[in-house]
Amino acid sequence: MNDEPSRPTLAVVADAASVSVSTASKVLNGKSDVSDATRQRVERALESLGYSRRGDPRPHGELIEVVFERLGPWAVELLKGVEAVARQQGISTVVTIGGTFDAQPESWIDAVMRRQPLGVILVFSTLSDREKRQLRTRNIPFVVVDPAGDPDPDLPTIGSANWDGGLMATRHLIELGHTRIGTICGPPSLRNARARLAGYRSAHESAAIDIDPSLIVPGDFSVEAGRRGVDQLLALDVAPTAIFAQSDLEALGAYRALQSRGVRIPHDISVIGYDDLPMAELASPALTTIRQPLEEIASAATRLILRLRAAGPVRNIRTELATTLVVRESTAVARPVR
Amino acid sequence: MNDEPSRPTLAVVADAASVSVSTASKVLNGKSDVSDATRQRVERALESLGYSRRGDPRPHGELIEVVFERLGPWAVELLKGVEAVARQQGISTVVTIGGTFDAQPESWIDAVMRRQPLGVILVFSTLSDREKRQLRTRNIPFVVVDPAGDPDPDLPTIGSANWDGGLMATRHLIELGHTRIGTICGPPSLRNARARLAGYRSAHESAAIDIDPSLIVPGDFSVEAGRRGVDQLLALDVAPTAIFAQSDLEALGAYRALQSRGVRIPHDISVIGYDDLPMAELASPALTTIRQPLEEIASAATRLILRLRAAGPVRNIRTELATTLVVRESTAVARPVR
Repeated sequence: MNDEPSRPTLAVVADAASVSVSTASKVLNGKSDVSDATRQRVERALESLGYSRRGDPRPHGELIEVVFERLGPWAVELLKGVEAVARQQGISTVVTIGGTFDAQPESWIDAVMRRQPLGVILVFSTLSDREKRQLRTRNIPFVVVDPAGDPDPDLPTIGSANWDGGLMATRHLIELGHTRIGTICGPPSLRNARARLAGYRSAHESAAIDIDPSLIVPGDFSVEAGRRGVDQLLALDVAPTAIFAQSDLEALGAYRALQSRGVRIPHDISVIGYDDLPMAELASPALTTIRQPLEEIASAATRLILRLRAAGPVRNIRTELATTLVVRESTAVARPVR
Repeated sequence: MNDEPSRPTLAVVADAASVSVSTASKVLNGKSDVSDATRQRVERALESLGYSRRGDPRPHGELIEVVFERLGPWAVELLKGVEAVARQQGISTVVTIGGTFDAQPESWIDAVMRRQPLGVILVFSTLSDREKRQLRTRNIPFVVVDPAGDPDPDLPTIGSANWDGGLMATRHLIELGHTRIGTICGPPSLRNARARLAGYRSAHESAAIDIDPSLIVPGDFSVEAGRRGVDQLLALDVAPTAIFAQSDLEALGAYRALQSRGVRIPHDISVIGYDDLPMAELASPALTTIRQPLEEIASAATRLILRLRAAGPVRNIRTELATTLVVRESTAVARPVR
């Protein structure tokens, strides 16, 4: 399909942008010595004419690029998954930190275009339309991993089953006899946070337990949010006997707030987290949590890139990998509500 | 210096190994279609003739390679440091996991030789002579980061000041009035472990405090070692009032063992760790520890690679970056020995 006659040449693009072909080529390849105005004009022409690069130059060899918005504790698991698949194919794994590009001489996307990788795995909450257009016109397949935001339907994404996870976490507590379960939420702007909360509600519904709305407290997945959440929950007339923190970091913040008050986990209050970061197992007591299969997600994203490479652009790819309950030491049978 | 007449050509190497130049070239470039016997013969010839590649082909563009023996919680900090410097130079950061090469179609070093990066940063405890020879004959500069083992003097290394760290940790506890300080060691085969223990001893000496040898218990930097260490220390006739765990993982294991016994940290026993992994700050109580400047170490290693690239091979480079004491919530003034 790389030679459909209908597709415009770079000369046509250059003409439409009234620049030389070499200037259009510079923009296409992310070279820096082009004025912003010209760059934007060429970008518009590339997009409006639906240009997409023919063939596959791969001047930098077989690279697959993982762009992190920022490097967090989850990065290691994701890298393991990408490297394992890439390595099997003799492909090099390039790591770029996109979120820091303000401090950088070039943006991550310019660096990506210069490298012309086989594909890009984006660990990004949100991707700008400009960035998407730039990747598409360069014919570089990309996959968004665990999209935190609301990705457009035309974005291939691989994540984990957040609603199932929220359901499993809450059902685990209900099965232990808890009926008064507090939950510390994530940012309502994020779909994974909304899905986890929906799972919490669904578990209550299936168990025919009414939810006291005051048990649902806001958060942003941070340690500090976990602390604040506990303050809020323990201030209620009737404190919960269990807490579903919708991220492991919130759960660790909850640990701090509870243990600093001398509240024993799980003897006095059960706590369950979400993510299964390395530190979950190391917390004391070891944190019961919902495991996101980060390594598997990254491997699947890498295989998808290679498929996209072979098959050409595909729209509407949404994959969700199963989440699992990991029972450790922080949840126990409910004691009578105090 | 890349054209000293004295240096042998690949043809001379091929002749010495009685193979064709193209076969010698295949071995040089890590191609796979060469028998092991032939490969070894060519490797021996490359080494014995002191071959080193002329010029710098860089067929895969400007890459710098970070090879991890395995990806641990410290990998993120190291990657940040490498990527920041590489990015500034427009260089791509390639991540390879070397420790897994048994499961891989090719060893990490074959992959490295195929890519011909600007240089290699090795996060390895030990590097085989064969691996060192292969990198040297390919004229690929490399630096070993935080060498766990005893690196040969001819290996450029960048690490942190382990003796200073052990000294600082112990002195901090002594300044809080502790005189009976247990320590959980690392593997005696590792020089960083030996240096940390030496720092522990030196702090006691400068304070004129005799060390009860039974307060020094073995370990291997693991969580489990931390648990066992506490079992051993609490079994003493007179328990210590403070514990210096020589790794954060050991400290977190010590947390588990202490808290499961209802021993309060730091009220009953102070605990200090070593590393300042992300989880140290998240533990409850937040762990007082010695910070290894992992990000700075990785940045320095990357700059060193670029210097080696420019200046050619340099021997006997040993850099140690300062460690710092990070006081959090897990250490407090000593109570009377029970």
